[in-house]
Amino acid sequence: MTNTASSALTRLHQSFRRRSLVEDALAMLYWDRSTLMPDGAADARTDQIAELTRMAREILVSDETSDLLDAAEQDRAGLSALDTRDLALMRRAYVLETAVPADLVEASQRAGARSEMAWRQNRAANDFAAQRPLLEEVMRLTQETASVRGAALNLSPYDAQLELFEPGLRDADVAPVLDDLSSWLPQMVQQIIDVQATRPTPQEPRGPFAEATQKALGEGFMRALGFDFSRGRLDASLHPFTGGIPDDSRLTNRYTTAGFAEAMMGILHETGHALYEQGLPADHRARLVGRSGGMALHESQSLIIEMQLCRGQAFQDYALPLVRAAFGDQPALAAGNFNALTTRVERGLIRVDADEATYPLHVILRHGLERQLLSGDLAVVDLPDVWNNAMETLIGIRPGDDRNGCLQDIHWMDGAIGYFPTYTLGALAAAQLMAAMRSAITDLDEQVRAGDFTALLGWLRRHVHQRGLQATTGEIIQDATGTALSADAFRAHLTSRYLN
Amino acid sequence: MTNTASSALTRLHQSFRRRSLVEDALAMLYWDRSTLMPDGAADARTDQIAELTRMAREILVSDETSDLLDAAEQDRAGLSALDTRDLALMRRAYVLETAVPADLVEASQRAGARSEMAWRQNRAANDFAAQRPLLEEVMRLTQETASVRGAALNLSPYDAQLELFEPGLRDADVAPVLDDLSSWLPQMVQQIIDVQATRPTPQEPRGPFAEATQKALGEGFMRALGFDFSRGRLDASLHPFTGGIPDDSRLTNRYTTAGFAEAMMGILHETGHALYEQGLPADHRARLVGRSGGMALHESQSLIIEMQLCRGQAFQDYALPLVRAAFGDQPALAAGNFNALTTRVERGLIRVDADEATYPLHVILRHGLERQLLSGDLAVVDLPDVWNNAMETLIGIRPGDDRNGCLQDIHWMDGAIGYFPTYTLGALAAAQLMAAMRSAITDLDEQVRAGDFTALLGWLRRHVHQRGLQATTGEIIQDATGTALSADAFRAHLTSRYLN
Repeated sequence: MTNTASSALTRLHQSFRRRSLVEDALAMLYWDRSTLMPDGAADARTDQIAELTRMAREILVSDETSDLLDAAEQDRAGLSALDTRDLALMRRAYVLETAVPADLVEASQRAGARSEMAWRQNRAANDFAAQRPLLEEVMRLTQETASVRGAALNLSPYDAQLELFEPGLRDADVAPVLDDLSSWLPQMVQQIIDVQATRPTPQEPRGPFAEATQKALGEGFMRALGFDFSRGRLDASLHPFTGGIPDDSRLTNRYTTAGFAEAMMGILHETGHALYEQGLPADHRARLVGRSGGMALHESQSLIIEMQLCRGQAFQDYALPLVRAAFGDQPALAAGNFNALTTRVERGLIRVDADEATYPLHVILRHGLERQLLSGDLAVVDLPDVWNNAMETLIGIRPGDDRNGCLQDIHWMDGAIGYFPTYTLGALAAAQLMAAMRSAITDLDEQVRAGDFTALLGWLRRHVHQRGLQATTGEIIQDATGTALSADAFRAHLTSRYLN
Repeated sequence: MTNTASSALTRLHQSFRRRSLVEDALAMLYWDRSTLMPDGAADARTDQIAELTRMAREILVSDETSDLLDAAEQDRAGLSALDTRDLALMRRAYVLETAVPADLVEASQRAGARSEMAWRQNRAANDFAAQRPLLEEVMRLTQETASVRGAALNLSPYDAQLELFEPGLRDADVAPVLDDLSSWLPQMVQQIIDVQATRPTPQEPRGPFAEATQKALGEGFMRALGFDFSRGRLDASLHPFTGGIPDDSRLTNRYTTAGFAEAMMGILHETGHALYEQGLPADHRARLVGRSGGMALHESQSLIIEMQLCRGQAFQDYALPLVRAAFGDQPALAAGNFNALTTRVERGLIRVDADEATYPLHVILRHGLERQLLSGDLAVVDLPDVWNNAMETLIGIRPGDDRNGCLQDIHWMDGAIGYFPTYTLGALAAAQLMAAMRSAITDLDEQVRAGDFTALLGWLRRHVHQRGLQATTGEIIQDATGTALSADAFRAHLTSRYLN
């Protein structure tokens, strides 16, 4: 590495480290807002967040950063692979932050906030007509933004949207995989439902289940799976999420006393996210190469824990004795019944309530429609009918109203076109990674039954967590499994779990 | 107001508002660090705090701020009284931030951190010899810093230290008041002890007292006193404090199950601080005139609640039925016994454990010694002997070791010379404010017995809280009580509570 590139990189790293510290502080302000903050502090917190966000942007966006990026790039021949990747990520961050003019960014954010706010009421009131002009404005601005950003990144508008959520992801990767799923998943869902219909309906556990006991049980599972409580916590919030930073991973969950399985699976899902964050390479903490990958890879880490591992029989053989010790025994906690309960497949209208088999169908629907919304081929006014028709074709049921149809999700209301595919790519990646892990750890199920997750976590650490953003999600999956991401392992997983 | 001054002030307010938002974010990071943060996040949090602190300083310290201050000051004839005060506070903030060269600030902070860190062990090990060189270095740098800062503010070094903790406070105000106290308080303490010796020793409540019940009881008292839970919370921490911001006041407390009175009084003390913060003028949130006054005034607000109100019989007549309802009845919770318990006067070695009558003696001792430490008249090496002699003279007992003598407090270890007097000035102000309030609200005790604190809080809001930093503490006390701050009301209070 020459002196020019070296000194430019050093100075870039200083700036990005400062930006990263401000973002870390922001992560705590967001976490606190969702967990502990009293309502009356909302305005003050909004102002704090706006100021810190502005400062994080100011650290990045300057002529100096631009000059340093140019200098380092002109001289990049001597850079290590790691520095080359880091430089590319810094350039990407700079372009994403600067490509769209400030007034357009602000107009988009304002329209998104207005639309999202109105949506909370319009969804409850099932009032698509009231939401329509707001959503039209959001779409208009998203089209403009995606087009400008796409021009700067040399990407199509939809690819420019995908890039926001998963670096390097292109629709040329997404569409074939979702097309493949479309070709066989609807039939497989029917088969699974037919098979499950021949079995007795699983019994629901009967509560009440004390919150404190649920939390203690969940923390026990987290600890067993390898969550480091010296670098993280579990708290309560209205919507479960994982916030904080790698050295302070803040999981949240919600509880009802009527049941425990949903909260338990919620904790296990968030634990997957948090194990990933805690496993990121400590050597590169403040550098972009040290961060977690995109949403698809992140979701693969939550789903490999929740869906692949914890809804499997081996994990439940380990977990159910602990559940019974916590809550007392009851018929619903018998191994067969609990597994049937946590692997039920049903056609439903609501994505967030969907099981792992039908979930991709909800995503396929949204992927098809959001591309047309972005291109303008689908007008917002036509969305309800097109949505309902697509639901009928893909999932076989038709929403009776928009609340349970095209008004159900927050994503588009805020302009988040391109987010939905990452859920399903994450599910496919989880299945593919689990298959590779099973090949590598031949007695995995025995270890899991014994409550030993050391080898499992070690494999994830080596093949996923420790890589950070040193490669794209596609490269990480390829390296870890030997093949490109596809739906094959997911198909095999569904077949094995539901049809054997 | 002319255009020049007006536009300069507007731009100054924008900068100070930005700085204030970063400081608000910092307040949350500090609060979280003391309450929830897992240990492993300490380094990351330190880095975040350092970065945000640096940014808050950068917003303030610039040629532009300096020019704007000059412009506004040259044109200040037309400014309102409020803007004049605000401008003076902005100048003060600028001078405090810039007077001391950066390398000296950094050297002081580093020496303070080193000394404070070592002190935690050296106090436990009762090892003054080990602490001595560290404290000498801190004192050397504090002398240098206070001298440079004093030159910039046209103040003596000790006044420059006082100014850090209480804007406008001078030793010419402090010394006469403490001298007055010295002239009669030791004898009064003896009288009180003699009187209390003639009465039966009060019984200690017998636990265990469940933490959750203590917390719920404390929250009930907070609510009754007027704490707004939509703008604040109560949580647990190792050392009780009030953090956060006026619209998000975060109280903390610690509990033991063996007793409840200490935790209850701790909550009530912090509630006094928090009521002050919540009562600051909302119209001036982001301006310096809208902030709370110095440490003396802040302490007066905690002590007027804890010491003046809640250790009084009227409050306890209201509170004890609630305490008995929470924990069940027992002889220690009889009105007379509980009041005797919470107003016991004893000579002790440790300041933080002292009752309201002996506490000022601990402060008088420290005030005398810290002025000599700062001037160099007292060498650190001589501190233990001088301390022990002074304890014997003032309080009548001699520490058997330095752990219970000159090593007990953190303040000097970190260079915080000038802080101690604010504790006692706060106690005197609390007594003087309470006397004025009693004159204004003639049936105060009846209201308090009925659990009605509306008039009490209203009086504090009007005469103290709502004034923010629009006047000095001295002016606020003068305006609220009609006389300058003195020890007279405190003397009358002690006489009334302990000797009648």
